[in-house]
Amino acid sequence: MAPLKGLWEPSLAADDRGLAYGDGCFETLRLSPAGAPLWPWHRRRLLAGAAALAIPLTEDTLDEALRQALTCCEGAAVLKLILTRGSGGRGYAAPEPCEPRLLASLHPLPARPAAHYRDGLATGLCQLRLAQQPALAGLKHLNRLEQVLARREVQQAGWDEGLLLDSAGAPVEFTSMNLFARFGDTLWTPPLTQCGVAGVARALILEQLAAGAGLATTVQMRSLSQLEAADEVFACNSVAGILPVRTLADWQWPVGRATLALQSGWAQIFQ
Amino acid sequence: MAPLKGLWEPSLAADDRGLAYGDGCFETLRLSPAGAPLWPWHRRRLLAGAAALAIPLTEDTLDEALRQALTCCEGAAVLKLILTRGSGGRGYAAPEPCEPRLLASLHPLPARPAAHYRDGLATGLCQLRLAQQPALAGLKHLNRLEQVLARREVQQAGWDEGLLLDSAGAPVEFTSMNLFARFGDTLWTPPLTQCGVAGVARALILEQLAAGAGLATTVQMRSLSQLEAADEVFACNSVAGILPVRTLADWQWPVGRATLALQSGWAQIFQ
Repeated sequence: MAPLKGLWEPSLAADDRGLAYGDGCFETLRLSPAGAPLWPWHRRRLLAGAAALAIPLTEDTLDEALRQALTCCEGAAVLKLILTRGSGGRGYAAPEPCEPRLLASLHPLPARPAAHYRDGLATGLCQLRLAQQPALAGLKHLNRLEQVLARREVQQAGWDEGLLLDSAGAPVEFTSMNLFARFGDTLWTPPLTQCGVAGVARALILEQLAAGAGLATTVQMRSLSQLEAADEVFACNSVAGILPVRTLADWQWPVGRATLALQSGWAQIFQ
Repeated sequence: MAPLKGLWEPSLAADDRGLAYGDGCFETLRLSPAGAPLWPWHRRRLLAGAAALAIPLTEDTLDEALRQALTCCEGAAVLKLILTRGSGGRGYAAPEPCEPRLLASLHPLPARPAAHYRDGLATGLCQLRLAQQPALAGLKHLNRLEQVLARREVQQAGWDEGLLLDSAGAPVEFTSMNLFARFGDTLWTPPLTQCGVAGVARALILEQLAAGAGLATTVQMRSLSQLEAADEVFACNSVAGILPVRTLADWQWPVGRATLALQSGWAQIFQ
C-alpha cells in the first residue's frame, strides 16, 4: 500500500473498485479531547474486514491515518475511514497485486436530542429483511444498500430507528445500531454470523462494560416474540453511544438499570 | 439531475454515496459499428434499478450519455455507465433532494479465446452462495462483493467461470453471466426474484432470440441435480455474448443446437 497518498483528498479515481463493486470496508469513529478511545476496536475490525476481502492493510498504515486525524482535529468529531481495493479493471476479478486506497474525512459529531438518551428511541419494524450471507456477515463493508433501503423506511415512517429482522424473521440489529436487551441479570444480543454489522460499541459492551455493570452476556438467536418479554432494550453504536429503546411499534420497555449503568461506563470512556 | 456534468471525468467526489454504500446501479454495454443494438434493454434495466432505489433518472439523460459515447467511439468497445445517488451526508439516510451522478467510461472490448465460443467453458461450483434479498434481486446495483469473492474462487481454481447457487442450493447464475440450459425443445433459466442479476443478454434471449430459434422458454427454480440431465448448457452476458458450457466439475454437456442457433441470432445483432 502506498504510504497514505491521497488520504485526505476530496476526490478519488472513478475506476476505484470501492465505487464499482463496494469492494472495501469503512469505519466511522468518534474522536474526543482524549483522542480515540475505541481505536483498538475500530482498527481490529477494519483489519479483519480487509483480511476477509484479501485487501492488504497494515496496522501501521491505520495508526498513521489516526495520528494525522488527531493532529488536524481538536475536540469532538467523527473520523470516517474508507478502505478500497483501489483502481481496477472492468470486471469482478481483482487486480493482482492491487493498490488499495485509504480515504479519511472528518465530520462534526452529530447532535442527538437529549431525550433520546434519557427517555429512549421510538422504533418500528422494517419490512426489509436482512439477507443471510455468512461470507460477509459482521463486516463493515461498503455494500450497504440494505441499510439505505431500510433507513428510507425509517424516514418515511418517522421513527427514530428501525429494527431489522433476518430472512427467517429473527431480530438482528437496527439500521445503524446494534440491538441489546436485558433479561434478568443477563444482557442478550443476537449473533451476527449470517448478517448484520458487528459494532464496536457492541464489542466494547460484551468485552468490557457488561462485566463492569455486573451483567452476564449471552449471544444467541432469539425470536422477535421473546423480545417483548425483555426487561429493557437498548441500541448502541460507537458514534452515538448507548440509547434506550422506549418502544417498538406497540411494545414498550422502561429505561432500565443496565442501560443507565452502561451509559455511565460509556461516559467515562469519552469524558 | 444536472445535465451530465462530469459524465466523462476520471474522478469523483470522495463523499459520493456510490462509494460509501454502493448506492447506485451500473451498466456495461457493447458498442459496435452499428451503434448500441441492446441499448433499449440496458436503458430499461438502469431505469428500473434507479426506480427501485428511488434515484431520479430520465430516459433523456441516458440517451444523451449514449449519444456522447457513440460520438467519441468508433467500432467495437464497451461503455460502462455508473449511476449513483451523488454526494451525501455521513449516514444511511439519503439527502432529499439528491443530486445523482452519472459516470461514463469507454473500454476496449475484452478478447476471449475463440475456443470459448466453439468448444465451451470449463466451469466449477463456487462455495460462496448468493444471499436471498428480494428487494435487490435482479438489479445491477453497485453492491457486488459476492461476485468479487466468487470471482476470486474462479481465479484460484483456474476455471473459465463459476456457477453460483443460492443459499438453498439451487443454481442461479455464473459470476458474470446468466445460466441457460436446454431440456428437449425448451430453454430453461432460473428466476432472479431472490438473488442474481437479470442480464440483458438473458432478456434478449427470453424475449426475442429463443422464439427465433424455435425454442420455448421456462423460468423456474430447478435443483442442481436436474442440471446434469440437460441436453446442453450455456452462459451469456451482453458483452461476451453466448458461450457454451462444456463442463461443470465432472459433468459434461455437448455444444448443442440451441447454443449454435442463439449464437447465430446474436451475431446478426452485432454484425
